[in-house]
Amino acid sequence: MHDALKKLSLLFERLPGIGPRQARRFVYSLVDEKPEILEEFAGAFLEMKKLARRCPECFRAFEGKEAGLPTGQAGLPTGQAGAVCVACATHADSPAILIAEKDVDLENIEKLGVYSGLFHVLGEIALPFQSETDKVRLKELHDRIKRSKTIKEVILATSATNEGDAVAAYVEKILENFTESGKIKITRLGRGLSTGSYLEFSDRSTLDNALKNRK
Amino acid sequence: MHDALKKLSLLFERLPGIGPRQARRFVYSLVDEKPEILEEFAGAFLEMKKLARRCPECFRAFEGKEAGLPTGQAGLPTGQAGAVCVACATHADSPAILIAEKDVDLENIEKLGVYSGLFHVLGEIALPFQSETDKVRLKELHDRIKRSKTIKEVILATSATNEGDAVAAYVEKILENFTESGKIKITRLGRGLSTGSYLEFSDRSTLDNALKNRK
Amino acid sequence: MHDALKKLSLLFERLPGIGPRQARRFVYSLVDEKPEILEEFAGAFLEMKKLARRCPECFRAFEGKEAGLPTGQAGLPTGQAGAVCVACATHADSPAILIAEKDVDLENIEKLGVYSGLFHVLGEIALPFQSETDKVRLKELHDRIKRSKTIKEVILATSATNEGDAVAAYVEKILENFTESGKIKITRLGRGLSTGSYLEFSDRSTLDNALKNRK
Amino acid sequence: MHDALKKLSLLFERLPGIGPRQARRFVYSLVDEKPEILEEFAGAFLEMKKLARRCPECFRAFEGKEAGLPTGQAGLPTGQAGAVCVACATHADSPAILIAEKDVDLENIEKLGVYSGLFHVLGEIALPFQSETDKVRLKELHDRIKRSKTIKEVILATSATNEGDAVAAYVEKILENFTESGKIKITRLGRGLSTGSYLEFSDRSTLDNALKNRK
Repeated sequence: MHDALKKLSLLFERLPGIGPRQARRFVYSLVDEKPEILEEFAGAFLEMKKLARRCPECFRAFEGKEAGLPTGQAGLPTGQAGAVCVACATHADSPAILIAEKDVDLENIEKLGVYSGLFHVLGEIALPFQSETDKVRLKELHDRIKRSKTIKEVILATSATNEGDAVAAYVEKILENFTESGKIKITRLGRGLSTGSYLEFSDRSTLDNALKNRK
Repeated sequence: MHDALKKLSLLFERLPGIGPRQARRFVYSLVDEKPEILEEFAGAFLEMKKLARRCPECFRAFEGKEAGLPTGQAGLPTGQAGAVCVACATHADSPAILIAEKDVDLENIEKLGVYSGLFHVLGEIALPFQSETDKVRLKELHDRIKRSKTIKEVILATSATNEGDAVAAYVEKILENFTESGKIKITRLGRGLSTGSYLEFSDRSTLDNALKNRK
Repeated sequence: MHDALKKLSLLFERLPGIGPRQARRFVYSLVDEKPEILEEFAGAFLEMKKLARRCPECFRAFEGKEAGLPTGQAGLPTGQAGAVCVACATHADSPAILIAEKDVDLENIEKLGVYSGLFHVLGEIALPFQSETDKVRLKELHDRIKRSKTIKEVILATSATNEGDAVAAYVEKILENFTESGKIKITRLGRGLSTGSYLEFSDRSTLDNALKNRK
Repeated sequence: MHDALKKLSLLFERLPGIGPRQARRFVYSLVDEKPEILEEFAGAFLEMKKLARRCPECFRAFEGKEAGLPTGQAGLPTGQAGAVCVACATHADSPAILIAEKDVDLENIEKLGVYSGLFHVLGEIALPFQSETDKVRLKELHDRIKRSKTIKEVILATSATNEGDAVAAYVEKILENFTESGKIKITRLGRGLSTGSYLEFSDRSTLDNALKNRK
């Protein structure tokens, strides 16, 4: 491969789950695209750079221009720069806030329509929260709860894995003063048999939860 | 393949999950076994024929000679022929009975040590319960509950699938008079995130259950 | 599981590719078989013990009663005990002998109808041929070639793997005196692209062979 | 997802093997990239648009600026616009030309170092060659052979599938006049066991080829 092709191939390898072989396939397929499509790609990347950012409240990925109404109640700035996402604006008075690890988790929950309320995206955090981004989002979560007059429940929707449990435990600890004071209660998603599970192949902790949570 | 080899190969194809190719591999591997091993196989099959049967109470597979003590309380015959399995004898006074679909389900639950009490094995039933075996087991379940002075809870441990739900609904209907009279309550295993689940890939009913059953 | 069930389960684990879980599934499925089927299994195992054996010429698995005609030419005994298989009897005058590693290889070749001639089954041999069985089969191969007045070609049909290549090289060495004297020539199966191969995913040795063997 | 994010997501879905879910994962991962990386992506796409093209001789993807020396022998224009790729320039006198279906096939062959000579990339053609691109490449192949004073062998390196065989047969037909006149001979890659093949699992045509091509 040559310089320009190689350069784009290496950039593609930055995308999640893409190795050298697939990156090259991408590049070769682009050689046969119409020039306009390559321009569209370039334009979309620049637009991403200009508009895409994270909501200063919930940290979800969104576009700046589509910012929600600033809400005096939440104490948010009213200018474009710090405007919040639509969900934060719409559900500003929600009694519940759901803590997700990743944008795709949040997207799946929204798509399935099983929850309506505030969100907070932690990011794909690696314990013990060494990155600055992690710290900012946790501090901001603490501030949101502190600031809010409506939030009564924090739903920890981390994955049902050791990592997810560790993250959830850490968040519980950070919000300890609010639970102790009775300002909020913290809940975790129910554990048990997920749809499609067979008893024959279930592990101990799943069966244990399924029995304890029977009803 | 020749007659004797072919005959055994066809018998192997009766085993769950075994197709012609693997059946032949079994047969070829047996050609190189010592004659004593082939005799052991033959003997083990005849012993199965003589001793293996289903417990007349819970319908689990077990061996006749290892029968549990007959319990007057449960109204069981005291002779060898109708003796119950160890679990039925040991837990005769259990307040709970867990309804499983298959022997392997029951075995997994016992192995993991998450439940201690009575069982009832329905068999791999195909709705709408056309086989005589299904009818016998359901009738016997009804009789067990009727007869029992201790059972207060029936735990429906069917798989978390449409089929498992349909079986559970059918069993609930059959035991309706006992629930209406207050003799027993019927519970189902808790639904939600099974261990190892990621929010990103969870389906609607799992997420819905996980949110409803949060705590 | 109980004694008789456990015993049969352990015997099933001797079969190729069968672990404890599947062995138990087999046993549970047999509990619900009719007694006659269990008797048929026992009978088939005893028949295997009585009749199944390996052809004294080619070592394929076959049944004694179906023995081929003894051939004076091949110097075989004429009694039932040492009679050869049908293939050895039918193709006694074949100019070619194909060396296979396993019964299932031979069966696949016969089923596909791509070869008609003598066979010799080496067994699933582990280099450096430490077992007595391996030695017997290699010695017998040497004797067959020596004895034969018709065999002109030995086709090494070992798998296209490092192990298969090592076995082939070893057999070539054992038959060295016959190739040097011009009595036989030894051939190996053609290497190249197998049906369904894509150039994009082919490895170096396959592509190298495909280019060298182009025509 | 919002407009800019959605737009890039849809563009990603144009890449081979990428569905909506993975496209979204790409976009979310880019939200957290540094702005410079997004600019690099945009720049690389524009550079692709400017420089990447297909060699007018062999149709491989390459970069214009890295064009090979124009060769009077091949009758190529000497200007930048129509300059050929390095391989076409370097191997202009090669006696062999290898016909590949895809850029990735060619790349794998080059990477493995099993062939040194001219190439010709047909593209992922769908029989019966309805697209203009297919026609251009086949016409150009015919012209290359006609024009060349050195090419003596055309190696058809299509995949070992029904589609690949059909493409190869079509190319043979197109070059018929050259083979009949004795100007060139056409060869196909050797067929047989590819590295790693087991006899037990080989299909009829592979085994048939392996036996016919034994040596």
